Amino acid sequence: MSKVNKVVLAYSGGLDTSVIVKWLMETYNCEVVTFTADLGQGEEVEPARAKAEALGVKQIYIEDLREEFVRDYVFPMFRANAIYEGEYLLGTSIARPLIARRLIEIANETDADAISHGATGKGNDQVRFELGGYALKPGVQVIAPWREWDLNSRESLLAYCDKHGIEVEKKKGKSPYSMDANLLHISYEGDILEDPWTEAEEEMWRWSVSPENAPDKPTYIELTYEKGDIVAIDGEHLKPHEVLLKLNEVGGANGIGRLDIVENRFVGMKSRGCYETPGGTIMLKGHRAIESLTLDRELAHLKDSLMPKYAELIYNGFWWSPEREALQGLIDDSQRYVNGKVRLKLYKGNVIVVGRQSENDSLFDEKIATFEEDQGAYDQKDAAGFIKLNALRLRIAAEKGRLL
Amino acid sequence: MSKVNKVVLAYSGGLDTSVIVKWLMETYNCEVVTFTADLGQGEEVEPARAKAEALGVKQIYIEDLREEFVRDYVFPMFRANAIYEGEYLLGTSIARPLIARRLIEIANETDADAISHGATGKGNDQVRFELGGYALKPGVQVIAPWREWDLNSRESLLAYCDKHGIEVEKKKGKSPYSMDANLLHISYEGDILEDPWTEAEEEMWRWSVSPENAPDKPTYIELTYEKGDIVAIDGEHLKPHEVLLKLNEVGGANGIGRLDIVENRFVGMKSRGCYETPGGTIMLKGHRAIESLTLDRELAHLKDSLMPKYAELIYNGFWWSPEREALQGLIDDSQRYVNGKVRLKLYKGNVIVVGRQSENDSLFDEKIATFEEDQGAYDQKDAAGFIKLNALRLRIAAEKGRLL
Amino acid sequence: MSKVNKVVLAYSGGLDTSVIVKWLMETYNCEVVTFTADLGQGEEVEPARAKAEALGVKQIYIEDLREEFVRDYVFPMFRANAIYEGEYLLGTSIARPLIARRLIEIANETDADAISHGATGKGNDQVRFELGGYALKPGVQVIAPWREWDLNSRESLLAYCDKHGIEVEKKKGKSPYSMDANLLHISYEGDILEDPWTEAEEEMWRWSVSPENAPDKPTYIELTYEKGDIVAIDGEHLKPHEVLLKLNEVGGANGIGRLDIVENRFVGMKSRGCYETPGGTIMLKGHRAIESLTLDRELAHLKDSLMPKYAELIYNGFWWSPEREALQGLIDDSQRYVNGKVRLKLYKGNVIVVGRQSENDSLFDEKIATFEEDQGAYDQKDAAGFIKLNALRLRIAAEKGRLL
Amino acid sequence: MSKVNKVVLAYSGGLDTSVIVKWLMETYNCEVVTFTADLGQGEEVEPARAKAEALGVKQIYIEDLREEFVRDYVFPMFRANAIYEGEYLLGTSIARPLIARRLIEIANETDADAISHGATGKGNDQVRFELGGYALKPGVQVIAPWREWDLNSRESLLAYCDKHGIEVEKKKGKSPYSMDANLLHISYEGDILEDPWTEAEEEMWRWSVSPENAPDKPTYIELTYEKGDIVAIDGEHLKPHEVLLKLNEVGGANGIGRLDIVENRFVGMKSRGCYETPGGTIMLKGHRAIESLTLDRELAHLKDSLMPKYAELIYNGFWWSPEREALQGLIDDSQRYVNGKVRLKLYKGNVIVVGRQSENDSLFDEKIATFEEDQGAYDQKDAAGFIKLNALRLRIAAEKGRLL
Repeated sequence: MSKVNKVVLAYSGGLDTSVIVKWLMETYNCEVVTFTADLGQGEEVEPARAKAEALGVKQIYIEDLREEFVRDYVFPMFRANAIYEGEYLLGTSIARPLIARRLIEIANETDADAISHGATGKGNDQVRFELGGYALKPGVQVIAPWREWDLNSRESLLAYCDKHGIEVEKKKGKSPYSMDANLLHISYEGDILEDPWTEAEEEMWRWSVSPENAPDKPTYIELTYEKGDIVAIDGEHLKPHEVLLKLNEVGGANGIGRLDIVENRFVGMKSRGCYETPGGTIMLKGHRAIESLTLDRELAHLKDSLMPKYAELIYNGFWWSPEREALQGLIDDSQRYVNGKVRLKLYKGNVIVVGRQSENDSLFDEKIATFEEDQGAYDQKDAAGFIKLNALRLRIAAEKGRLL
Repeated sequence: MSKVNKVVLAYSGGLDTSVIVKWLMETYNCEVVTFTADLGQGEEVEPARAKAEALGVKQIYIEDLREEFVRDYVFPMFRANAIYEGEYLLGTSIARPLIARRLIEIANETDADAISHGATGKGNDQVRFELGGYALKPGVQVIAPWREWDLNSRESLLAYCDKHGIEVEKKKGKSPYSMDANLLHISYEGDILEDPWTEAEEEMWRWSVSPENAPDKPTYIELTYEKGDIVAIDGEHLKPHEVLLKLNEVGGANGIGRLDIVENRFVGMKSRGCYETPGGTIMLKGHRAIESLTLDRELAHLKDSLMPKYAELIYNGFWWSPEREALQGLIDDSQRYVNGKVRLKLYKGNVIVVGRQSENDSLFDEKIATFEEDQGAYDQKDAAGFIKLNALRLRIAAEKGRLL
Repeated sequence: MSKVNKVVLAYSGGLDTSVIVKWLMETYNCEVVTFTADLGQGEEVEPARAKAEALGVKQIYIEDLREEFVRDYVFPMFRANAIYEGEYLLGTSIARPLIARRLIEIANETDADAISHGATGKGNDQVRFELGGYALKPGVQVIAPWREWDLNSRESLLAYCDKHGIEVEKKKGKSPYSMDANLLHISYEGDILEDPWTEAEEEMWRWSVSPENAPDKPTYIELTYEKGDIVAIDGEHLKPHEVLLKLNEVGGANGIGRLDIVENRFVGMKSRGCYETPGGTIMLKGHRAIESLTLDRELAHLKDSLMPKYAELIYNGFWWSPEREALQGLIDDSQRYVNGKVRLKLYKGNVIVVGRQSENDSLFDEKIATFEEDQGAYDQKDAAGFIKLNALRLRIAAEKGRLL
Repeated sequence: MSKVNKVVLAYSGGLDTSVIVKWLMETYNCEVVTFTADLGQGEEVEPARAKAEALGVKQIYIEDLREEFVRDYVFPMFRANAIYEGEYLLGTSIARPLIARRLIEIANETDADAISHGATGKGNDQVRFELGGYALKPGVQVIAPWREWDLNSRESLLAYCDKHGIEVEKKKGKSPYSMDANLLHISYEGDILEDPWTEAEEEMWRWSVSPENAPDKPTYIELTYEKGDIVAIDGEHLKPHEVLLKLNEVGGANGIGRLDIVENRFVGMKSRGCYETPGGTIMLKGHRAIESLTLDRELAHLKDSLMPKYAELIYNGFWWSPEREALQGLIDDSQRYVNGKVRLKLYKGNVIVVGRQSENDSLFDEKIATFEEDQGAYDQKDAAGFIKLNALRLRIAAEKGRLL
């Protein structure tokens, strides 16, 4: 075990990370700096201050990072239409790089030589925190208590608290699930979900009503895009995190954004997770719609071909990497003309595109596309040569008896 | 204009292709063979016989290709989770290669030297028909009347009918849309849809009720998969086209599968189309679910990375090509272990996965994935080395000041 | 045939394009502007002036574009390590976009409504010229005489000259090959090369000695790179085109850069071509070497995975397209740290890397890579966990009996 | 440390693996089975028997795997034109999966519960051995002594030998390099190569003469291909490993196949290696040539786009994986028509293609490609429409002012 003088801990204020504070002090005989961020998880962060103080922490960082989170992480990711394994909108993955960055920045500010987090050794989050940490401060030491200690059950954690005088809140109605939340989503794992054949319980979900319980009348919204990002809803200009707050609200109210999947973790196992991503689900649909009108075909297809790779990078924790940055550059650049409006109908779990327009940047050319007389905008005879030359190699192969 | 002796026409029995029969006879002074296929479009095909006879056609082919269509075209495509431009399930595209193949086979049987179709010079279907034709019979001549004649309005077509004694049915409630239908979907283009900002009218849709009008109670179904294909619904074994018929029925009744998009045609323009694909929408969701349990991660990601290319090939008309066949081989081979069951909840436009299981082929390993004590199935300490070596190149780069 | 007032012609001064000048005047009754560029083809361009004047041309553009050609087209392409079909360095392809651009710019300056070129209807160059033209001036009219006229043999061309008083130079030793040259390469097609089993004749090659005739002593050179481009040779700072001139000279003298391939044209046929690219062959090898030291692994692999697409775009004529520009942005951005020196040994056709170094940007970390004692720079035990987790999915699959 | 009863060791007979035999017996108190394979490394394998016996080994496997190695590993890989990072022909990588497989098969035969190898903790080979081992026998235990023991210098190894009575051969002229050899190549790392700016010494190379010392007269050879594999040289039918033996001989004699690169290891560091791959270098060139004549364009481009991924998989040790097998299926299938002959000229380091032909499977259509009168085989007018529709999206974008 290396010598550590000071460690910055990603601190939620909950039981696990409170135990970690004490365990770090005791095990490494070091100073602990706590860092608690409001990423829109929907819980107060300020109470973490008193808890940290009670544990003997001297340097306490509590920050509202919601705007930065959406502006610099969520929005760039949605420019790519990123989906992991055809389904997952990467809600947990996208928050980790920001936390990793703040951990390192605080380590630099406070002269700490280590960072620590409460993620287990089985999951993706440890990878995301630590790859970020190493990428941003190559010499940093990382302490992952769950991989080191032997407090591997709730009972042993409670016993530890008891022994060290750590106050344990008695929450009633504590969720049996392992959860993570931020402005983009809330996730659920564990408990009955460990059987992929078992349906999730209605009471598990927290951010959305079920489609059944959603209003019987649809809600229409209009999203305004500039360079691929939403800048206004129903004509009202909003900051990035306000956009997402608003879409979560209207999406959740209409039963939108629930997902139940089995996914492949970077560490090599499959796991089952349920996710609520109301605003993100709307954003994906809306973004595809505005791109469909304004993006060149081949640029769109290039983006589509790169998307699985890009999503995998974020899922696996390589946000802070040369390859993600290179792809981001291409993606951001592609959004230059992704400007305009999308009209959506939200109804009982459905996000339905009902209109899209772009005053200056639409590549939809009605006079060419029309089924009516087009005044020569398009010469149908051109298609004959187009097809003939596209077919030439096929015909030569066919003459050799290759096809059929 | 080359000399043509006999031409096989893809004949629907409608106004346009009836005019084409006559126009071919007159223009090319040739014999016309008609081919009419039941692909599940929902209209009787038998009446085409009398119409063709009335036009003087001697050789008339009328065939029920529904089983072949689903078994050899739709199912293979769904093994790939194919989606064009993030949204479109390729309903029209996938029927064309089968029609092209039958046109050529009939040409061979009847000693015809040409084939013909009623697709316009602006669309994708001409390309799909013709690439298929050339690939399967490289010396065939293709006649595309819409690119040759000057009957470019409904008025001129009617005048032509009048002059040539072609009977025109007076349908009431004729759709103002350009439509195409088969067992996989029905499509709508033109008319008010030519403005992408205008919402489609409720009365346009034919195969599905709206989510609003769907039942207030969900329907649960269970799909059984063998090698990536659905072989039973709710335990009842079905042929491929019976599967799709059944899923269309239950999907359409639950408001599932409507889509409204702007897409990029192969000929270079954007167009707006609306699609109803109730069964296909269910199939995509179900297939992803069974794959999530049974497919290896890297194989799944490889498939995802190839999918956009595969979908583009089908959209562009390259079904009958060496590259599509190569990809198909890989995709089909990947499905060896995609066996098991998926349970779905259908409700007002939503397809919700609520369970998936595979007796022999699940790669979900509960004893490894569990949040509980895992008896050493997984050694969390391994993660430290895993992360360290994944981070090594990032740390070296960071030491050079590259990141942040 | 549309009405044309003035057309800008890519004019070489040779027989074919001289005939085209006259044919355009006569056929379209229009004014002709000639444009002749020095791209380093190794022939004087100034004589084209008198010839054009003799044909009655009033507006004559003759330009030295060598620096621009290498700086803005050749160098950016080599940043990508672009190779078409594993072999071809795209020498002809990369010159066309620059010519297309100047044709359009001159058309704009001279108020011309059309452009014209001397490329045949079978090749790739027509596509490259015209796609560029349309992309840069969407309403331009393009005249491709070889697709329109009936002067399809040398005899008919000579007869045309005779009839119209066009002076024909009697060159002795006229090459029987169809050739194209610029600073990057010279190409040969046709004649005996039309049989892919026939070896090219030694006397065909113009820019390089054969390896057999190259000096018996190797030549060493040192290339200095900044952001992926060569800025100095043997310590001497040079402009881009001077770099290529110098490398062509030393490469050609050492028998470097001959290539004999069968390639796939965009129009659908295979063709056989021979190419001499002495400088380019050296540049490719050198660039790979400096990247090997300075580029991050995953960024390098991302570039490699995109390269075939990028090369195909250039080959097919899509230089002026959103997708090529997007890829270029990524590629250029990747070169930020590609700085340093490469030492090469040139000997009888071989380009051998013998050293590479980068003062500030090398990611080769000798203290980690060493076979000697590394003082803890790398902990070999980390590899165990790294391998274990990389193996996890394979082991789970193997337990299901999937592998072997 | 887990209990081990019997371990199968990849045993070369050299100092390191001899120490490992003893160390395993002593450390794990287990039985050791040795496995020594002739993969064409050019050293006798039979002497390993006496050495193993002297060390007290009871079960000794010595096998000639040369034919299997080339037939089932090298040839399949060359069907893909696999190159890692633009340069490396994967000579070491491709031998490891076969060794891993035999280790596991022998473990199964001898009832051993573990395997072991002599690869260090810094390199790729440990990964390749172990991923293979885990994939083929998921419960196997792997012992990697270099990651466990403290014998980290030649001195400590010699001291260990002295203490345990292991006889050490005194070779004169022992190479200072870390080397690996098999029929495909020989590799060199370490010593003066650890400075990437230092040129390799001429005396390092073992299998090839330098280009300078190669004959002054070229050697011509003719390769016959069936389904992408070489089956005959100069008309003489040969088994796979005989092909490679022959090509190594003629290649080495002509100074072909030396390579000096910096490469990126899977474990995250860059390393510098020199390789001699005479036969492989010829095979790559020849295979590209026969494919250029017989492979469809789009299938060839698909292969090219997948190649970097495929090469990376082999380099990283994922030969025994679902994704490599899926790609292999596609690649093998693509070779159905890759039949014919290639004629090569070998001269002082150069492999020059001078002819290729395929009686039945050539897609080179001389009557279409010709520069002479083609009798209507190709209608040049088709190109106009082909270009126009390829340009359509560019023109629409240009009208919006997007390009230039």
